[in-house]
Amino acid sequence: MPTSMVLPIKKVFALVDSRITVEIKDEDRKFQGRLISVDEYLNIHMDETIELIGDERGRSLGTVVIRGNNILTISPVI
Amino acid sequence: MPTSMVLPIKKVFALVDSRITVEIKDEDRKFQGRLISVDEYLNIHMDETIELIGDERGRSLGTVVIRGNNILTISPVI
Amino acid sequence: MPTSMVLPIKKVFALVDSRITVEIKDEDRKFQGRLISVDEYLNIHMDETIELIGDERGRSLGTVVIRGNNILTISPVI
Amino acid sequence: MPTSMVLPIKKVFALVDSRITVEIKDEDRKFQGRLISVDEYLNIHMDETIELIGDERGRSLGTVVIRGNNILTISPVI
Amino acid sequence: MPTSMVLPIKKVFALVDSRITVEIKDEDRKFQGRLISVDEYLNIHMDETIELIGDERGRSLGTVVIRGNNILTISPVI
Amino acid sequence: MPTSMVLPIKKVFALVDSRITVEIKDEDRKFQGRLISVDEYLNIHMDETIELIGDERGRSLGTVVIRGNNILTISPVI
Repeated sequence: MPTSMVLPIKKVFALVDSRITVEIKDEDRKFQGRLISVDEYLNIHMDETIELIGDERGRSLGTVVIRGNNILTISPVI
Repeated sequence: MPTSMVLPIKKVFALVDSRITVEIKDEDRKFQGRLISVDEYLNIHMDETIELIGDERGRSLGTVVIRGNNILTISPVI
Repeated sequence: MPTSMVLPIKKVFALVDSRITVEIKDEDRKFQGRLISVDEYLNIHMDETIELIGDERGRSLGTVVIRGNNILTISPVI
Repeated sequence: MPTSMVLPIKKVFALVDSRITVEIKDEDRKFQGRLISVDEYLNIHMDETIELIGDERGRSLGTVVIRGNNILTISPVI
Repeated sequence: MPTSMVLPIKKVFALVDSRITVEIKDEDRKFQGRLISVDEYLNIHMDETIELIGDERGRSLGTVVIRGNNILTISPVI
Repeated sequence: MPTSMVLPIKKVFALVDSRITVEIKDEDRKFQGRLISVDEYLNIHMDETIELIGDERGRSLGTVVIRGNNILTISPVI
């Protein structure tokens, strides 16, 4: 692995404390919230989490831990 | 990994002995019960478990062990 | 991890030689049988296995090894 | 782990050179053939493999390697 | 493993800084963008990412991290 | 593990430089091409790849890297 490359996980670490969108595999559903922590498996701890069904706001979920393997994408809320 | 960050798994450890909701991937079904133990794979041992179909109460399941990779989210029952 | 916590896998070890129900992910099907052995991945070796379709008895399967990642839940037959 | 327990994988090792049925997750399809080798992930190398669609014989596949995580069950052909 | 073989992951490392297409498992959707980094699990960090629905251009997604296990294929944009 | 057993992965290593068929989990789609390299996760690097939809030839894909966990079977083209 090229030693100068910043790994994907580091990109996610850099998003701690900011708002992120987590897209779930095989579901028309996303979670949006503040990233509290993330580990090497991309398990995610978020708070102030809301559900997005398509692009519409769904339930408020508060604190959730999401299992990394079921996550499709993680991206910053712009 | 920032050394000061509390990992997602630690958030779940902190929920041992309290009631949690476990949302299953790809199913309109949740498990709600008391968290007995959890390991690094997010395998969960719960008791007093009930099934929720959508938001309606389903069967009482008692003691179950849930395989971590099939879990979408874990959250505290508020 | 709190050192006093008994891990989920230990709960399953405690079920060796007794009858268990194994619920499969994404299928309306369960396996019921006597637990012969289990490993850290929750791979399961059962014998005297029968299939349950919903709650109706299906085929007798005898000896089967079930891949852990496709298991949703393991629970004791009460 | 109880030291006297024979692990699930050992049950599969014991089937090398005999005919097995491999049930695939989420598919109404099985593979039946002679087990050549298996590893710790339950990856399977079979030859003289035939496909079973439900209980009807399908195509002859000859030599195949099957990825362990997509296997639901492995059992001896009786 | 033959020592002279260049591993699949190395092929992906060689695509860093160039445009790639990432095909998602079970979805009629692809991501196309510039590969920023990749790790041993094939987790991908891309920017200038666009979605392709079938072969039509969908939304612009900017920066995304994609969980490796949900990726079916990675290929260079020719 | 019986020490004399040749592991499944070795069977795949032996196919490097020859044409293989890769069957994808849950899809009526296969990839056929020349195997360039494979690693312990069964990640595959192929070139001269074509898609097969059922048994009909689909698109030419050229060079692709396929994530191992989404592969159902690997077999030699006879």
